[in-house]
Formats: sequence, structure tokens, C-alpha cells
Amino acid sequence: MDVIRKKTMENKKIILTGDRPTGPLHLGHYIGSLANRVALQDQYEQYIIIADMQALTDNYENPEKVRRNVLEVALDYLAVGIDPQKSTIFIQSMIPQIAELAIIYLNLVTVSRLKRNPTVKSEIQQKGFGEQVPAGFLIYPVHQAADITVVKGNLIPVGDDQAPMIEQTNEIVRSFNRIYKSNVLVEAHAMFSSIPRLSGLDGKAKMSKSLGNAIYLSDSADVLSKKVMQMYTDPNHIRVSDPGKVEGNVVFTYLDAFDPDKKNVQELKDHYQRGGLGDVALKKRLIDVLNTLLEPIRKKRIELAKDPEYVMNIVFEGTKKTRAVAENTMREVRKAMHIDYNIKG
Amino acid sequence: MDVIRKKTMENKKIILTGDRPTGPLHLGHYIGSLANRVALQDQYEQYIIIADMQALTDNYENPEKVRRNVLEVALDYLAVGIDPQKSTIFIQSMIPQIAELAIIYLNLVTVSRLKRNPTVKSEIQQKGFGEQVPAGFLIYPVHQAADITVVKGNLIPVGDDQAPMIEQTNEIVRSFNRIYKSNVLVEAHAMFSSIPRLSGLDGKAKMSKSLGNAIYLSDSADVLSKKVMQMYTDPNHIRVSDPGKVEGNVVFTYLDAFDPDKKNVQELKDHYQRGGLGDVALKKRLIDVLNTLLEPIRKKRIELAKDPEYVMNIVFEGTKKTRAVAENTMREVRKAMHIDYNIKG
Repeated sequence: MDVIRKKTMENKKIILTGDRPTGPLHLGHYIGSLANRVALQDQYEQYIIIADMQALTDNYENPEKVRRNVLEVALDYLAVGIDPQKSTIFIQSMIPQIAELAIIYLNLVTVSRLKRNPTVKSEIQQKGFGEQVPAGFLIYPVHQAADITVVKGNLIPVGDDQAPMIEQTNEIVRSFNRIYKSNVLVEAHAMFSSIPRLSGLDGKAKMSKSLGNAIYLSDSADVLSKKVMQMYTDPNHIRVSDPGKVEGNVVFTYLDAFDPDKKNVQELKDHYQRGGLGDVALKKRLIDVLNTLLEPIRKKRIELAKDPEYVMNIVFEGTKKTRAVAENTMREVRKAMHIDYNIKG
Repeated sequence: MDVIRKKTMENKKIILTGDRPTGPLHLGHYIGSLANRVALQDQYEQYIIIADMQALTDNYENPEKVRRNVLEVALDYLAVGIDPQKSTIFIQSMIPQIAELAIIYLNLVTVSRLKRNPTVKSEIQQKGFGEQVPAGFLIYPVHQAADITVVKGNLIPVGDDQAPMIEQTNEIVRSFNRIYKSNVLVEAHAMFSSIPRLSGLDGKAKMSKSLGNAIYLSDSADVLSKKVMQMYTDPNHIRVSDPGKVEGNVVFTYLDAFDPDKKNVQELKDHYQRGGLGDVALKKRLIDVLNTLLEPIRKKRIELAKDPEYVMNIVFEGTKKTRAVAENTMREVRKAMHIDYNIKG
């Protein structure tokens, strides 16, 4: 029985996924990744990284915020149904092997290659860094390559914009294996999500804490109602009898994403476009739909939040397991690099 | 007694010094640093790093060479009189905390700052890297800052050209302490050597394995004789009776560096300049001087080389001790950064 279980585990593909602990998770996270993780955890060996070191790269003046959100994010994970028996949650900064690998990989990547990375390039522009970019920011794809390869991740759920990260990882994997004549490191494949990014309450493309336009998994029913009531609809839909627009109407975006009754959503769209369906009635429907989804999550989250030590212990257990896997990878890496002094003296 | 010893140790300033294990050590190393280390080890708490990770940055296709030279360098250390009871020899790659610190420090340094480092700048030019510089090479001053600070090194013996490294380290120390409101990290001071660089046998400024112009501590008396006999003197000093030049005459450079009888050296110089002192007679004097210095080192080295396990165990013991010190530093660093999850949960 144990042998069979082990064999099955070995054959399971390994997923690496995770979040930066910079705030509690919201509906965008839920639909974009959390729901998927719950669905995938039976089929795959899943590692979920709480990337506190990466969060610190642009929050280094506010480490307390990062620290606090490790617990918040862990609460969100467990509340949505990520099962620590099936998924391994771990804290990035507690895996020193990630730093060790990153330092090793930095020899295999040129500065110009890092600057050509489209994701990094556009982020450097957005943030107006220029040459004043912190070295830690420029090299973060290398750090991510270490996150992925330390657990030998095969499958990485990403958005389209993150494909260059997987490419960079695989270039490093191939360089390492070629130079050190090994097959220790494993190439990763992107698992692209078919779900488009969920817009904010205000219709802006990005849902984020700083824009104040997100619905959190931890929001109470009251807060949820208020947020939905503020949602951007159709500014020209003044009277109930007016015909309204569906495109760009955030309420419909959310109904499309969350209402399991697709037929009913279509009827609401038709009615809204004809005229005669008010925003308030429409929003009440969305509130019902979201409460149905969120109520069990909220309940579980409140329950778990009463015992933060229990929650952190789950994360520590996952971290310990990951550390053992990481140390095994490092042992193989050190052997390939002829720096396995402990073993052969 | 133990308390007193501990107190004394605590008050001792900490030196960090070391070498890249890319070849056995030669007379240039001896006069430039090894002799100094032997002299300093009573007065200071001295850590000696065998920087294999740094050696791999430009020897990554030849890890076996780096590996082999860890033992060679350790043999040289012990043979010249570095005492493991007083000095702590350790292997860089076995201290994961160095990689952890380096990754943390990369957030505190901009890419343009790294490119402005005069030492790195001139090395990038020398090696013709341009933008194709490996990221690991560009960031190596940050890695060195991690080497130094992980043991809280106060004093770093360096040549003039390495002063920018200490500056970079101290900028990182100040940034870290300011941002994380701590006094965990300690600023380092350069200990400049008054000894000029020893030229090669051929009179070239640099003594190096690739130029084949070095005398190794491990060279036998026979090899030593042959090498001294090839030494560059004064090409116009053809007959014994000719007056000869002392400036640029490598034999005199070495006599200045190694002959304890300064008065005799002055007499030889006068005689050579007057004419009547042949190169062979002069070289024989140098051979005698060097054999007097090297004979006990050679003997000890041959003895030690018979038991490589014993030698590596000394290095492993030093590495274990360093690892404990490094883990203590990391514990303080993690606390300052609010990522000390293990301790406070």
C-alpha cells in the first residue's frame, strides 16, 4: 500500500504556484488561481509558495506588513479549501536553498539577458527605475527560477505575461545541466489559465488593495453589499426603463465569472439591454451569488483565525517538508558542481 | 576561566581574509598575506575563507579544478603555520547563510551602483564582457559583503585596488541597519598591506599560474633552483665584470622581500652595480634564502599531504564553527527583517 502510494506520488507532476504576502486575497485571486488550485490538488503534487522574500523586494521599508500577511494569505488558502494533506504550503524565506540556487544561477545568466526580459523591462519602465533599478529587482526572474527548480516544478500556472519567466527558468536549467553534465534540474512548463483577469469594482483592469477596488475573501456580508452597490455599471443607464449596456458593466463581468446559472445570466443580460431591469435588482442578484460562494469560506476563515498558531503550524509543516525536498535538490546540485564536500570529503 | 576566555574572544577584533581555490599558493601569496595571517592570528579572531563559490564564477566549466584546489590551499595554510586553534578556515559554499545574505543585500544596491564599482568596472573591461557580463560577476561585491558581514568582520586585509569592495560593503551595512532599524551588521575597515606586489620570475607585474612565472610553496628544492636560475635580471649584464642594474632585477626584488640580512642585500646591490658579481652567484644566494624559508614549509606540507582526510577535517571543523556564527548572524538579520517565523510563530 505504502509502496503503491509512493509510486503514484512519484509519477505525479509537480506544480509550483503561490502569492506574494502583501495583502489578503480577493475575488480576482479566487477565480484566477485559488479555485484552480483546489481543483488541481488531487491530481498533482502541488507546492504553494508564500513569497515573502520577493514581497520584501519592493516592500523592504515595511517588513511588518509582509509578516502580517503571511498569516492572512495562509488563512485564505485554508478557507477556500486548499488541503494541507494534498498541497504543501511553505514560506520562501525559510528555504535557504532557494538563495543558494539563485546565487549559483546568477553565473549562468548575463546582465543583458536579464534586461531583455519583457516582464522585467516593462516593470522597470512602469516603476521609472532606469539604471537605478535595485539589483534584486533586475534578478528576480533568476530568483523565481530557483523557487521553481528547488522543488523540481514541472507545471507553473501563469498568466500570458509571465511566459518569459518560464523561458528564463528553462534557459537556466539547460545551461546548468549542460555545463555540469547533469540532469538534476527539470524544465518547467507554463499552465496558462483560460480565465481573463477580473476587473476592479470601478471597472479598472486591475483589482488591487492600493486602488481600493477589490472584494476580499475576508470581507463580511455587509462590506460585500456595500462594495457591490458601488460597482461601475452603465453611466447612461439612468432610469430603470432605459436600455443598458452589458459590455464594460462590472456587475455582468462578475456574474459571468461567478454565477453558476449561466442561463439566468443570459436572461438578465437580455432584460438589461431591453430596459426595465434596474441596477439595484441586478446587484442584489450578484450579492446573492457571491454570498453563496463566500459564506462557507468566511465561516471557515473566522473559525481558523481564532487559532493563528494552528494555521502557522500547518505552514511550518509544509515548510519543513519543502526544506527536505529542497535539501535533496541542493545535494544533487552540489554533487554535479563538485562541491559536495561533506559526502566525499 | 572559560568566562575569561570568552570575554577575551569577544573583545578581539574579527578579521576576514581568504583565497579563491584556483591553484596552489605561491611566494606572492606568502609575502602579501600568508605571513601576515600567521602574525595576526594571536591578536585577532581570524576567519579564512576558501572562496570556492567565487572561484566558480569564472571557472564554472572546470569545477574539478576548484574542488581539487580546496585541499591544496588548505595544505598551504597549515604548512605556513596557520594554526586551526587560532584561525578558522572555512569553505564558502558550505555556508548557505552567505547566499541568503547576498540575496537580501541585492535589494539594497542599484545596478548602476554595481557598474560604478571601479574594481568591477576595470575587470569587466579587461575581460571584454560589456553587457554580456554574467550577473554573478557584476554582483560579486555584494557576495563579498555577505562573506564579510556573515562573520561580522571588522578588519579586512586588502590591496589598494580592493578598497572599493570595503566601501560597497559598508554602504550595504548602513542601508540595512537604517532600513531595518537595527545594529545587527557591522562596518568593516580595510587593513592595507605595506608590501608591494611580488613580480613574476619574468619580471611581469603579476605572478600567476597561467603565466607560468610563479614559485609555489609546494615547489621542491630542484624546481625552485630551476625557476630562480630562469629569473629575469639585467639583459645588459653579460660578463661578470660588467656593472649591472638593480632596478627591475627580479632577483633583487626577491632578496628585498625575503632575505632577512638587509645589510648583506645592500652589499650585494653595491657589488652588482660596480661589476664583478655574476648572476649565478647572486641567484645562488636567493636560492639559499628561499630554501631556508621554504624547507620547513615543504616538509610540513609533504607530511600533511599524506593524510588529506585529516586536513579536510580541520577545514570541516572550521566550517562548522563558521556556520554556527553565520546562523547566529542570520537569526539577528531575520529578526530585524521581521521574517523570524520560527521563533515567534
